[in-house]
Amino acid sequence: MLDTVPETEAGAWLAAFAGALARGDIAGTLALFAEDCYWRDFVSFTWNIKTLEGKPAIAAMLEARLADTAPGDWAVGKVTRNGTQTEAWFTFQTKVGRGEGIVRLEGGVCRSILTTLQGLDGHEEAIGARRAMGVAHGADRSRETWAERRAAEEAALGAGVEPYCLIIGGGQGGIMLGARLKALGVPAIIVEKNARAGDSWRNRYRSLVLHDPVWYDHLPYMPFPANWPVFTPKDKMGDWLESYVSLMELAYWGSTEAKRATFDPASGRWTVDLVRDGKPVTLRPVQLVFATGAYGPPRTISLKGADRFRGEVLHSSAYTDGSRFKGRNVVVIGAASSGHDVAVDLWEAGAKVTMVQRSATTVVRSGTLMEMAFEIYSEEAAAKGIDVDRADMIAMATPFALQPAAQRALYDRIRAKDADFYRRLAATGFLLDFGPDETGLMMKAYRTGSGYYVDVGGSQLIIDGEIRVKSGVEIDGLTETGIRFADGEEIAADAIIQSTGFQSMHEVIAQIVSREVGDRIGTCWGLGSGTKNDPGPWHGELRNMYKPLAHPNLWVHGGNLALQIKAREQGMDTPVHGGPA
Amino acid sequence: MLDTVPETEAGAWLAAFAGALARGDIAGTLALFAEDCYWRDFVSFTWNIKTLEGKPAIAAMLEARLADTAPGDWAVGKVTRNGTQTEAWFTFQTKVGRGEGIVRLEGGVCRSILTTLQGLDGHEEAIGARRAMGVAHGADRSRETWAERRAAEEAALGAGVEPYCLIIGGGQGGIMLGARLKALGVPAIIVEKNARAGDSWRNRYRSLVLHDPVWYDHLPYMPFPANWPVFTPKDKMGDWLESYVSLMELAYWGSTEAKRATFDPASGRWTVDLVRDGKPVTLRPVQLVFATGAYGPPRTISLKGADRFRGEVLHSSAYTDGSRFKGRNVVVIGAASSGHDVAVDLWEAGAKVTMVQRSATTVVRSGTLMEMAFEIYSEEAAAKGIDVDRADMIAMATPFALQPAAQRALYDRIRAKDADFYRRLAATGFLLDFGPDETGLMMKAYRTGSGYYVDVGGSQLIIDGEIRVKSGVEIDGLTETGIRFADGEEIAADAIIQSTGFQSMHEVIAQIVSREVGDRIGTCWGLGSGTKNDPGPWHGELRNMYKPLAHPNLWVHGGNLALQIKAREQGMDTPVHGGPA
Repeated sequence: MLDTVPETEAGAWLAAFAGALARGDIAGTLALFAEDCYWRDFVSFTWNIKTLEGKPAIAAMLEARLADTAPGDWAVGKVTRNGTQTEAWFTFQTKVGRGEGIVRLEGGVCRSILTTLQGLDGHEEAIGARRAMGVAHGADRSRETWAERRAAEEAALGAGVEPYCLIIGGGQGGIMLGARLKALGVPAIIVEKNARAGDSWRNRYRSLVLHDPVWYDHLPYMPFPANWPVFTPKDKMGDWLESYVSLMELAYWGSTEAKRATFDPASGRWTVDLVRDGKPVTLRPVQLVFATGAYGPPRTISLKGADRFRGEVLHSSAYTDGSRFKGRNVVVIGAASSGHDVAVDLWEAGAKVTMVQRSATTVVRSGTLMEMAFEIYSEEAAAKGIDVDRADMIAMATPFALQPAAQRALYDRIRAKDADFYRRLAATGFLLDFGPDETGLMMKAYRTGSGYYVDVGGSQLIIDGEIRVKSGVEIDGLTETGIRFADGEEIAADAIIQSTGFQSMHEVIAQIVSREVGDRIGTCWGLGSGTKNDPGPWHGELRNMYKPLAHPNLWVHGGNLALQIKAREQGMDTPVHGGPA
Repeated sequence: MLDTVPETEAGAWLAAFAGALARGDIAGTLALFAEDCYWRDFVSFTWNIKTLEGKPAIAAMLEARLADTAPGDWAVGKVTRNGTQTEAWFTFQTKVGRGEGIVRLEGGVCRSILTTLQGLDGHEEAIGARRAMGVAHGADRSRETWAERRAAEEAALGAGVEPYCLIIGGGQGGIMLGARLKALGVPAIIVEKNARAGDSWRNRYRSLVLHDPVWYDHLPYMPFPANWPVFTPKDKMGDWLESYVSLMELAYWGSTEAKRATFDPASGRWTVDLVRDGKPVTLRPVQLVFATGAYGPPRTISLKGADRFRGEVLHSSAYTDGSRFKGRNVVVIGAASSGHDVAVDLWEAGAKVTMVQRSATTVVRSGTLMEMAFEIYSEEAAAKGIDVDRADMIAMATPFALQPAAQRALYDRIRAKDADFYRRLAATGFLLDFGPDETGLMMKAYRTGSGYYVDVGGSQLIIDGEIRVKSGVEIDGLTETGIRFADGEEIAADAIIQSTGFQSMHEVIAQIVSREVGDRIGTCWGLGSGTKNDPGPWHGELRNMYKPLAHPNLWVHGGNLALQIKAREQGMDTPVHGGPA
């Protein structure tokens, strides 16, 4: 406990780092880094989400941004040593706000550093000690009560008072951003095509349950209660979101669809045509955020002979109720998450299910993943003070370039632990893989968001032969009564569910803004790893996610954009280092 | 920091205490106590809420309860020294569950000790690491989804399946108890005469805001969000309660009134006749809880000549909207909390208000109270890990007998700080007091629940003459157009609001169960202090609150009854030491 060596090492490094930065001494700063080094920045230096890889990239960033950022007040927090690596949390101050970060030292120099902007000075979130009083004490004949003020604000916003920010999509992403902006005092409206908040969950298939545990899923300011289940059932998630929207007092327009959005560079405002409760409404926000989910529109494959098929063909996103397929033959095309979930739901409803697997799938058992990959998102971590914000910081502190090695090691352990399970699953003909470079589920998620399944029961049905798998054989086409394969086999089908995934989010932008803008922005997610469906060049970050795009005042939401939007609302200078995407 | 003396002192004392108890050595145990000593127990030793005052009372309790309680596994937690007093938190184990407590030592012996039962072994709350999984992984053709299970439970409970516990009253008290029982797996129904949870707040007067700060008001399992206001406006409180009921999945019957309850000693069950949505329903719970608020029915005073008065007379509990009194003369009878709140609300609505003060009032400014009396319920305390549960423990650790001295000292400081304010208020003729023994607001609250006001603006209106005060003169009666006093003055009145308080909660029991049972139970709240309206003998605890009453299977809720009810549901032996009230 009194071994102060890591603390001393971290303190000395941070002091030297602070000194070099304060002197504007870029060479001196670089001397504190290892040759193979990474500086990951969330907004604090770059007004971007950016990993600078290697000394030349770090030097270029500092040349461009150091003077303007003017960092100071560096202070070391918690320090730990893991093997040869010393990890130190720290705080700092920039010209515009307060920052927090994590540095990892090896041999006295920095292997990787994370810097994040946590708040803008003078624009702190109205929480904790800064929360509203709720009442102005003292009698006041012009008093507006809370209920009256809320009603007046709701009536005015979007009907005379323009929102600064319009959020298209009222699932958890849009709702979270709305809550953050509310706490920062940024007028925002969330529009959602479903009637009530939470309907995007309620409307899904019967057995849907979140695959991530509760510790991973918290929303800002109001964590899930202590008695919340580990895996949230879809309708309960719907109820949570609906209560959350009400309690956070968000301007949430249900039954509202965004039809078209046009940007006017001269005024810096969007014109967004909406249909709300069947009536046209036009809003003119400054910022436009697409929070329409991690994916874009459904991706369907064209099936030869579909016109002659007498059964039903639908995409998994339109599948809600298995009961009408009871006793029927159903073919599910696709063997990733939605393919498995739909197949299990159909089986539970009493259908005879065949899963068509077109390419290999990464499967990890839920229990194993919980045990081996969620240490920092767990009851034990929470008890040690690692809440979801702390855990996210820890996860963020590892640059993407260094993740494959760690993930590969994790999957070596997972494959060893569940060797028997994998052997039995493979014996059914199911094609297993662990990614193009054996890095497993999470890297697939980052790179393509597809090709994996967290097993919550589907694999056992496959092992038991309850769900038949047809793997690795091209689909030839449909017949009147089924589906025919290149190997000549024909499988009878009353219905075909295409669990073939989704297009990129930028296709939603293409639909609502324009094809040209959609294409200019390009694919969302993906790292440029050069692996299948994630073409290079290497980006080092997730493409287009929660950072400036190749179009002004336009954002794709998959994280926390609130500070970036607040800074712009305040007219701050926000030069984006390293360009978009 | 390395001064271990308090830790050593506390550790030695607890070890000696544990040893004496383990040997059944009551004399040896008493030797560890000061002459003027107090043992306050919440359920763990006594199955009661009881303060044993002095060695003979402690000896009697141990004679009766030590063998059966079989306490052990005593362990010291946090220890602090305040002046000559050493305070130590500790945990222990009884035959049925785990306990926690706080001991305060002076000169090496115990001045006061608090012991509380925190959980029943084998019946722990389903929270944290014990939370539900939310899904049974694995495919299952008989799967019942969360939504289906909830719907089935809701349909069955009270219609075939009897609740173990029926809670009459669905305000925050009944709701909290419902949530605790749910976490303990005790089937319960909450019935509430208003349509929706939260309506008991929404239906009150326009400007109502909680007088206690957010840190004091948390409900179990789901604390208020970080952005919740300090003082919750009534409609926002209503929304919170409504969301809470939904998210906690409570069986909550709105629009339901309890008409009559009869206990059958033979079966140990109640027969409760209810009217739900206009239709009669009968329930047969084992336990019946009245959670109808801190007070009973309105207390009205009879006013001579009321029949000839041409204006309106109503009780403050029926006052909701001041706007219809704009420009009118309104007399508010009563000068405590509701009298002030109603007077301010009327003034804000533009009425001409006179407050009739019949006896002296304890007034404390809200800001002063927040600053000087809520240290342990504050953002600063929460940041130090003192959440509402910790803070309640600290508050509970001081026996009632020792509170007057501390409160008197607090009010000496408050009176010094706000001397100018009190001087100006008194100058208006407003009668101020600080209780019969100068102990201030909190002791009045415990003793009679009346006669005080946390000033949130009313006093300034009185000081400014905006609200006129008529003090200390008997009301002679009403005339056709106003109210006449014993000094001959007549004040014109279009309306008279009786802010004259409420009867004791046992009057509600008398209405629904029987006069005889109501009288057997007697007054709720009060300590038996022998001061005005709190007749002796001294009880040392709040009469009838959250503990067994003088009638089996009947409870008045003002705290947390859940463990006591769970123990009975499990058929545990629960001999109540010290009898009811």
